[in-house]
Amino acid sequence: MLATALEGARSASFPHSEAPRRIDAYLAEAEFDRPTLVVDLDTVAANFRALSAGLEGVHLHYAVKANPEPEVIARLVREGARFDAASRGEIGLCLREGARPEHISFGNTVKKPGDIAFAHAQGIDLFAADADEELVKVASNAPGARVMIRLLVEETEADWPLSRKFGTAPDEALRLMGVAASLGLVPAGISFHVGSQTRRAAMWAPALDMAASVWHAGLAAGWPLEVLNLGGGFPAFYGDEVQGAEDYGRELLGMVRARFGGVPYLMAEPGRGMVASAGVISAEVLLVSKKRSDDIARWVYLDIGKFSGLAETMEEAIRYQFETTADGGPMGPCILAGPSCDSADVLYEKRPMQLPMALQAGDRVRILSCGAYTSSYSSVGFNGFPPLAVVCI
Amino acid sequence: MLATALEGARSASFPHSEAPRRIDAYLAEAEFDRPTLVVDLDTVAANFRALSAGLEGVHLHYAVKANPEPEVIARLVREGARFDAASRGEIGLCLREGARPEHISFGNTVKKPGDIAFAHAQGIDLFAADADEELVKVASNAPGARVMIRLLVEETEADWPLSRKFGTAPDEALRLMGVAASLGLVPAGISFHVGSQTRRAAMWAPALDMAASVWHAGLAAGWPLEVLNLGGGFPAFYGDEVQGAEDYGRELLGMVRARFGGVPYLMAEPGRGMVASAGVISAEVLLVSKKRSDDIARWVYLDIGKFSGLAETMEEAIRYQFETTADGGPMGPCILAGPSCDSADVLYEKRPMQLPMALQAGDRVRILSCGAYTSSYSSVGFNGFPPLAVVCI
Repeated sequence: MLATALEGARSASFPHSEAPRRIDAYLAEAEFDRPTLVVDLDTVAANFRALSAGLEGVHLHYAVKANPEPEVIARLVREGARFDAASRGEIGLCLREGARPEHISFGNTVKKPGDIAFAHAQGIDLFAADADEELVKVASNAPGARVMIRLLVEETEADWPLSRKFGTAPDEALRLMGVAASLGLVPAGISFHVGSQTRRAAMWAPALDMAASVWHAGLAAGWPLEVLNLGGGFPAFYGDEVQGAEDYGRELLGMVRARFGGVPYLMAEPGRGMVASAGVISAEVLLVSKKRSDDIARWVYLDIGKFSGLAETMEEAIRYQFETTADGGPMGPCILAGPSCDSADVLYEKRPMQLPMALQAGDRVRILSCGAYTSSYSSVGFNGFPPLAVVCI
Repeated sequence: MLATALEGARSASFPHSEAPRRIDAYLAEAEFDRPTLVVDLDTVAANFRALSAGLEGVHLHYAVKANPEPEVIARLVREGARFDAASRGEIGLCLREGARPEHISFGNTVKKPGDIAFAHAQGIDLFAADADEELVKVASNAPGARVMIRLLVEETEADWPLSRKFGTAPDEALRLMGVAASLGLVPAGISFHVGSQTRRAAMWAPALDMAASVWHAGLAAGWPLEVLNLGGGFPAFYGDEVQGAEDYGRELLGMVRARFGGVPYLMAEPGRGMVASAGVISAEVLLVSKKRSDDIARWVYLDIGKFSGLAETMEEAIRYQFETTADGGPMGPCILAGPSCDSADVLYEKRPMQLPMALQAGDRVRILSCGAYTSSYSSVGFNGFPPLAVVCI
């Protein structure tokens, strides 16, 4: 009976998919033999336009790390976006796809000296730093460059607060502006990051208050501050309500104006908010089983896992939404896991997922809002599985 | 003063390195512009021989996922090792490097149907399964094959116990032997995994007791059990004492014989224990800083992190040992982080590392016992950083 059930292929139908319309149409015809991320470039462009409409006059530097597919970069260049790069590799990518060097910021506060020199030689002139040693490296390898001092945000309401890894305390920031100037650099501004997936603009208030106090103290000290970098944190929809992009941008901009007044170069670095909703992963159920006959939750194993694209399920941080070809009947709890032999490759266990009771091996699965932080996190080939395939449409 | 300190390159000397002698000599001459794993194939061979000496008569199927470098596989083929593969990709790799198909087991309990068919066509005849659906897939794609039913180990003293992801309860295992037979498969044995990094052989007792009860019940039920697969769990040295490989193997073998008697095909799947000690990562300090002037712990940023090879620092599970060119003076606590813009890319924070107080940007670092689960976990290019480079010597 089992054999019969598995041999009769179920039709791969998703009648009420929430995927972007173009992806839905594409997937209806496509056949993949491995997990594949499909990115809708029109949705990327629409997200850019919505954010730009709300954040009027703010220069949007797309955080390339969110999705470094060349076609995504090329489309954003055509839309008029600017870019924030984390490494020499990302800078090279942006330049190859047509971005102008003066539109690229090098926002990583932990840079290799050779990468700074490379950026400088390409004409990039805006670097982030949060420590003495980093300023020394920038001064040695990009003499005279403009630097943004990155501030540590310790109070946040983000879904996924950042660690203390980046940024420095307000007092230190003011001291570092002086260090920058003494090294021949231009202390041109400040940057910070409010935390990933900050779902409503109002949640920015504590970080903006802190940044404004540093900004005004810096101006009072005579530093030529002109760049206010709001960083990222613009949310994507993962099931919990988020404020619409245009409305979000407009409210945020009002909060910024109220605290900072006029700013010569106001910039932001949206990543997730620009590309997450533009991507859907097409995957497959490999196995459904129970460990004991009386277990409540089933184990569902997919052909994609933590090491092949879904790294943001670490500590169950990002909770993706799933559609399956078995949708429509009763639902029940599942522990969801990836295909590798690594026992850490479990996606959701503490909070099991609700999936159709009828789900079985061979069923197709769509994972929504997967355009950000998936393909580039994929391992080179853990367990011999290839990296996540990507198709841009 | 800072500038001067950083510009004067410190000599990259590791006078008292604990790295394997051949790697120490190699690194003394090598220059890398990116993090690089150096693997000493002689140490891999020595580890294989030591384990083989202790586990006399046990077929060692190297767990390819631990380090799938072609040169590692080729050397182990020459040494007489057998292999356990997790996917079609790993099977292809082993065959290309000269392994015979009858010496390869397909031990992943979550297999793609096409991968099973590929393995079967190549002549592989030993598969693991822990669920009805998996047996159906094996029966459809590798008719008549031998299967090992994988048992769930819930009681373990391993440093890194496995999740409940793999294996089934003892009662279910006996039922699945019947299901296998009814599908035309041969219920040929059992497998289990005692947990990663099981530091002393004596720690195997509870798992062996459980497995022996299933084994004897299976024989009593008339199933033609011949394969006892002890899985992995053989430890590497990460600073805490571990029992020597030969001694470990001999003690374990005695425990197995006492519980199982004679077994036609006794096998084990060492991965970490075979390659970890054979690899050293050569890396560099990118930045040392404090968030506030009165913080106790410094932040130390390396050019390698969680997404470029050190994935096993997740939840601070594996605690690597570090050597630096600043060794020799007073030590102090550090929070250790990787180079990416991802705030989750922090290696050790809950239990800070002790590193030299004199450590600064540009200092070289060696990370010991990195031969297992590093290169293959590396991301394809998160933040634009290339995957971990590997050199076999």
